[in-house]
Amino acid sequence: MNNEKLPSRKENYAEWYNQLVLKAELADYAPVRGCMVVRPNGWAVWENIQSALDRRFKATGHVNAAFPLFIPMSFLEKEKEHVEGFAPELAIVTIGGGEKLEEPLVVRPTSETVIGSMYSKWVKSYRDLPILINQWGNVVRWEMRTKLFLRTLEFYWQEGHTAHSTAEEAREETQRMLDVYADFAITEGAVPVVPGRKSETEKFAGAVNSYTIEAMMGDTRALQSGTSHFLGQNFAKAFNIQFLDWNNELQYAWTTSWGLSTRFVGAIIMTHGDDQGLVLPPRLAPTQVVIVPIYKNDAEKEKVLPVVNEVNQQLGNFRVHVDSREEVTPGFKFNDWELRGVPLRIEIGPKDVEKNSVAIARRDIPGREGKSFVGRDQLNLQVEELLNTVQKSLFERALAFRKANTHDPKSYGELMDAVQNGWAYSWWCGKKECEAKVKEETKASTRCIPTDQPGGHGPCIVCGEQASEKVYFARSY
Amino acid sequence: MNNEKLPSRKENYAEWYNQLVLKAELADYAPVRGCMVVRPNGWAVWENIQSALDRRFKATGHVNAAFPLFIPMSFLEKEKEHVEGFAPELAIVTIGGGEKLEEPLVVRPTSETVIGSMYSKWVKSYRDLPILINQWGNVVRWEMRTKLFLRTLEFYWQEGHTAHSTAEEAREETQRMLDVYADFAITEGAVPVVPGRKSETEKFAGAVNSYTIEAMMGDTRALQSGTSHFLGQNFAKAFNIQFLDWNNELQYAWTTSWGLSTRFVGAIIMTHGDDQGLVLPPRLAPTQVVIVPIYKNDAEKEKVLPVVNEVNQQLGNFRVHVDSREEVTPGFKFNDWELRGVPLRIEIGPKDVEKNSVAIARRDIPGREGKSFVGRDQLNLQVEELLNTVQKSLFERALAFRKANTHDPKSYGELMDAVQNGWAYSWWCGKKECEAKVKEETKASTRCIPTDQPGGHGPCIVCGEQASEKVYFARSY
Repeated sequence: MNNEKLPSRKENYAEWYNQLVLKAELADYAPVRGCMVVRPNGWAVWENIQSALDRRFKATGHVNAAFPLFIPMSFLEKEKEHVEGFAPELAIVTIGGGEKLEEPLVVRPTSETVIGSMYSKWVKSYRDLPILINQWGNVVRWEMRTKLFLRTLEFYWQEGHTAHSTAEEAREETQRMLDVYADFAITEGAVPVVPGRKSETEKFAGAVNSYTIEAMMGDTRALQSGTSHFLGQNFAKAFNIQFLDWNNELQYAWTTSWGLSTRFVGAIIMTHGDDQGLVLPPRLAPTQVVIVPIYKNDAEKEKVLPVVNEVNQQLGNFRVHVDSREEVTPGFKFNDWELRGVPLRIEIGPKDVEKNSVAIARRDIPGREGKSFVGRDQLNLQVEELLNTVQKSLFERALAFRKANTHDPKSYGELMDAVQNGWAYSWWCGKKECEAKVKEETKASTRCIPTDQPGGHGPCIVCGEQASEKVYFARSY
Repeated sequence: MNNEKLPSRKENYAEWYNQLVLKAELADYAPVRGCMVVRPNGWAVWENIQSALDRRFKATGHVNAAFPLFIPMSFLEKEKEHVEGFAPELAIVTIGGGEKLEEPLVVRPTSETVIGSMYSKWVKSYRDLPILINQWGNVVRWEMRTKLFLRTLEFYWQEGHTAHSTAEEAREETQRMLDVYADFAITEGAVPVVPGRKSETEKFAGAVNSYTIEAMMGDTRALQSGTSHFLGQNFAKAFNIQFLDWNNELQYAWTTSWGLSTRFVGAIIMTHGDDQGLVLPPRLAPTQVVIVPIYKNDAEKEKVLPVVNEVNQQLGNFRVHVDSREEVTPGFKFNDWELRGVPLRIEIGPKDVEKNSVAIARRDIPGREGKSFVGRDQLNLQVEELLNTVQKSLFERALAFRKANTHDPKSYGELMDAVQNGWAYSWWCGKKECEAKVKEETKASTRCIPTDQPGGHGPCIVCGEQASEKVYFARSY
């Protein structure tokens, strides 16, 4: 089934993506509209994402817990902006155990409300703060236009929910987790991301401020890859999270929430993938090295296979798979593992056995250029170095691509062109009207006001008024 | 809040359990009836359970994936016994995105149906088999009488679903996973379990045969702690999972499913807990060792704290927590950590510092008897040994308890008494009427027909007819 070639990205990017996800067996369409099945190949990537993030959450003092899937409809209604934002996207349980429910239950689209109600029960005094809890789970948002990994009715994510005794501490937490996401995306995913603040229009329903890491995909669109929200006292007031402070006075807590989802698997596919298929960053690749034995007859096979096993043993520190299928050719295997994005391929044939060496092919550099021959005595060291090199060069390639496709339009006219094929980095006065005009006329939205600002002032790219911040405009997923 | 004493188990076992779960902050009641919040202390135990099981699943060739939460109602109806078993317990989504759905969606109570539908898409030839997939997730069953961890509307579990080309292979898989569960329960949980087959009445809705591991709780009731089902071709036929065999003939696949849930946290609580609170088996305990510094004044504090930090460093291979709270006394801390079930407590005071030793108290043996003084140079070795000893003795104690409370009644009258306070291990002819009579008259059900049988024959404890198998009768959770 993997024999049919993918369409090229240039030909049809959307189709390239869909077919790649299906052919590499990362995910499949579920029988329910808009839902996905994450297949073992895709889930293994997500497990590596989970473990890289969970390590960082625990290192920053967070613990995991589990809150219920069902939320009483009335809870959502307690925070006005929150319910306005989520009401159109809800899946609602109206029947339980054969009977109509008195109060309908919402299948959680996010858990600020139900977690807020528990925090109000648990928090009495400043000694109970901060609460630093994360949850790994599934949420449901009734999306109309869906796309595997990027936007599905049900998706998998983590949502952190913290409560603090001061605004300052909550703001620090919001920033800390944005930094954790950026570090994760860059270090583990080799995905260069721009951290920044969302505009008022684009922020989370119920937040005071939302922060995001934005990544440029292979078609130059932006993908929001993780978000961190400062919720102020909005949810604390809605759910009555109050504590006695050091002066024995009752105060509302300050809360944050932050999330990163299976959408990030989509970010990896579209940041690194090429016309041959998936290209996985070594640190997140479920299989880092695939070994393909090469032989033409039984005599060669007897010579090659014991060495394949030895090499497999030798590389015990890496995630190695030996492709010992008999029913397909080495050429078929090469294509198959390229499609599946394994960073390094080791070929071992009779000549390699004689020379006590192996051939290693890099996934990120096709053909001869990416191939090297390595002596068995140097193998462990070389594999480690090559994996590091691939990880680094994927990041650099993606960063160079983003830079090459980020424009500095000199006029509104140039902006309109720029966002058809990249990001525009422009001064913006901050007014909703200017943002709305760009969106209406170009389909590009403000992606983020990057943390890293040039300083000074400039004319708003839309209205020309003096502006003090630059923003990224881009079409997005 | 932890100052109030628990009721003793003898006084009120149910209340002892409920209060322990709440006070030790393992779980809490959610705002939706019958749902639970698993708090960080409880979730950390579940994470250790997950990791111990996941390791075993992967070692036996399984991979993880994720299937959707929502199942079309029509899918459940495809397997007659399955829908009959689950229909009364369903939560049903009837509204999505503000509109009434054409076909209601069931929130999965278990995933045989939706996974079956995907397997029918993925399986074409015998080369595609076996499929060995596990899923970690949440499921919903609309239970009427709920109890934290043991029976809640939503719970967390893993469900393995495999498809095979022969009945024999599927039967082997069913047995293999039952063995995995038994090994896990015994080795990691220190929970002695009896593996065996469920009766026709007690088996999973849609299975040909169900197997279980049954454990005796502290009140002598039985808890079904994990199940493994041989589904025959029932679901393959309902969902058309067909493959071309070696002779190019179309065959239905043979499937299995197996699951273990957060209920196992309840098994641990009720197997090992005592009147002081939780007793965690060291291999699953999130904190294995708690260090409590003992000092009366600043001079002693300055002497003790550096040593506490050294010891913490020294024990880097274990999961150690230092209780450095200033606002509570050492006595309060002792009670608190006893309630929370930490296997070993290390006390370090000025005298210990002088003697270059520490005091270690075992959670499973209260008072002086469980206390030892260990030189710093021996500490790592001693802690390791003590953790192993505690793990082993918890298992032995639970096994002795089960044996002491398992009876061999000589008559139906004796059986009726026996199951009021323990398990009865008796010959049973296998007839539903005999099973039903016991249940009606004593509330005890058949828990399992153990794999390990004495052989030979005996008279059915109910009707006196010749029987070839012995069964456990017990009241259960």
